[in-house]
Amino acid sequence: MVHYPKQSRILVAVDCIIFGFDGSEVKLLLIHRGFVPEKGKWSLMGGFVQKNESLEEAAARVLKTLTGLDGVYMEQLHTFSDQRRDPVERTISVTYFALIDIHQYEDQLSDQFRPEWFSLKKIPALIFDHAKMVEMARQKLRYKAAIHPILFELLPKKFTIPQLQLLYESVFDQELDKRNFSRKVLSTGLVVKLKEKEKRKSRRGAFYFRLNKKNYSDEFHSIFNFIPNPELV
Amino acid sequence: MVHYPKQSRILVAVDCIIFGFDGSEVKLLLIHRGFVPEKGKWSLMGGFVQKNESLEEAAARVLKTLTGLDGVYMEQLHTFSDQRRDPVERTISVTYFALIDIHQYEDQLSDQFRPEWFSLKKIPALIFDHAKMVEMARQKLRYKAAIHPILFELLPKKFTIPQLQLLYESVFDQELDKRNFSRKVLSTGLVVKLKEKEKRKSRRGAFYFRLNKKNYSDEFHSIFNFIPNPELV
Repeated sequence: MVHYPKQSRILVAVDCIIFGFDGSEVKLLLIHRGFVPEKGKWSLMGGFVQKNESLEEAAARVLKTLTGLDGVYMEQLHTFSDQRRDPVERTISVTYFALIDIHQYEDQLSDQFRPEWFSLKKIPALIFDHAKMVEMARQKLRYKAAIHPILFELLPKKFTIPQLQLLYESVFDQELDKRNFSRKVLSTGLVVKLKEKEKRKSRRGAFYFRLNKKNYSDEFHSIFNFIPNPELV
Repeated sequence: MVHYPKQSRILVAVDCIIFGFDGSEVKLLLIHRGFVPEKGKWSLMGGFVQKNESLEEAAARVLKTLTGLDGVYMEQLHTFSDQRRDPVERTISVTYFALIDIHQYEDQLSDQFRPEWFSLKKIPALIFDHAKMVEMARQKLRYKAAIHPILFELLPKKFTIPQLQLLYESVFDQELDKRNFSRKVLSTGLVVKLKEKEKRKSRRGAFYFRLNKKNYSDEFHSIFNFIPNPELV
């Protein structure tokens, strides 16, 4: 019988980075850590991988147990392995992240570990290397949002251009010029103007738009237009 | 003293996916696995993570031990955790990948595990889930090459457009139209025509080009030109 007797086995954890859009800005979900060390401090949703589960299963279980959130599609981000990242015992952590519509999951949030949504501008001190994990996830989110129209999916079916602009400003942490933004978004062909206006936010109102589903899925073109669409995911 | 007594510790491995360009196509480096099970079969360069090393250190050590390659910058790709991926014992594997110039590292390659470069069109059967790992790395390579001019870096300082085209064809596994390719590459402003011609490959010869370093670094623009450059890495 073959075995690998001389190798060290290592603790493996998962940590979940959940961004949420509340209609005006992107926020980060944090909980109070439930065990020592650092019990009670702000933390990502994390836990150890069990004997009989894959990393994806562990991430889904941990997220559900700690927050109640169920069925959130998370993407693997990066595996962190600094030897001193957990002071108790060497633990490598595989991170997963997602961007969700906060309102859609409102009812699922459980109170047990007191989860809270934090503005990306006001993230509190986090345990271990969690701040590094969040920073990498923000980078990845910007990267994806620069290449794919993923942010459009977070908006309601009818949305206004100012709403879309707020979302981009929140992800890229920069104010964007209104007139330019509007002109350029319209020129992508990704949105279709509706006849109806949103009138609660200004006297003049802002036209509603919807996504142009066909253009949306055809949309990816490499910045190098000399290569074929590499079927980016 | 805090500890985590009830958790399972897991075997953690690294696997290295090394692509190389030999001047005309992109190849994959494989070795003969040196231990049971599957001893002698074609394999990525893999090994277990030791007690006192990070994943990055493990990947560099494994690559050097098995092939002699030293100082290759590898990027973390993905962590694979299917419970049956290693038939002996549950092992999660963190994959790393790189794209190198084969000639530059020629002298370093050691014979011990009989490493060989394989055309991407003729990859042999691989152990475990290594074929899946290679496929994901190819996707990532296409993705990166669609967005960044990384492939330009593999060419010599003076290169011809047909050379560049061969490289893109090899990565994207597609023939590209010559005239179109040339016209579109020139229109990017990324290359500068030299006076000298390459004459060994055809009577008429092909002009040499060099990279336009300034345009090269300014080059990234999101396909959504309404957002700022997200400093993609």
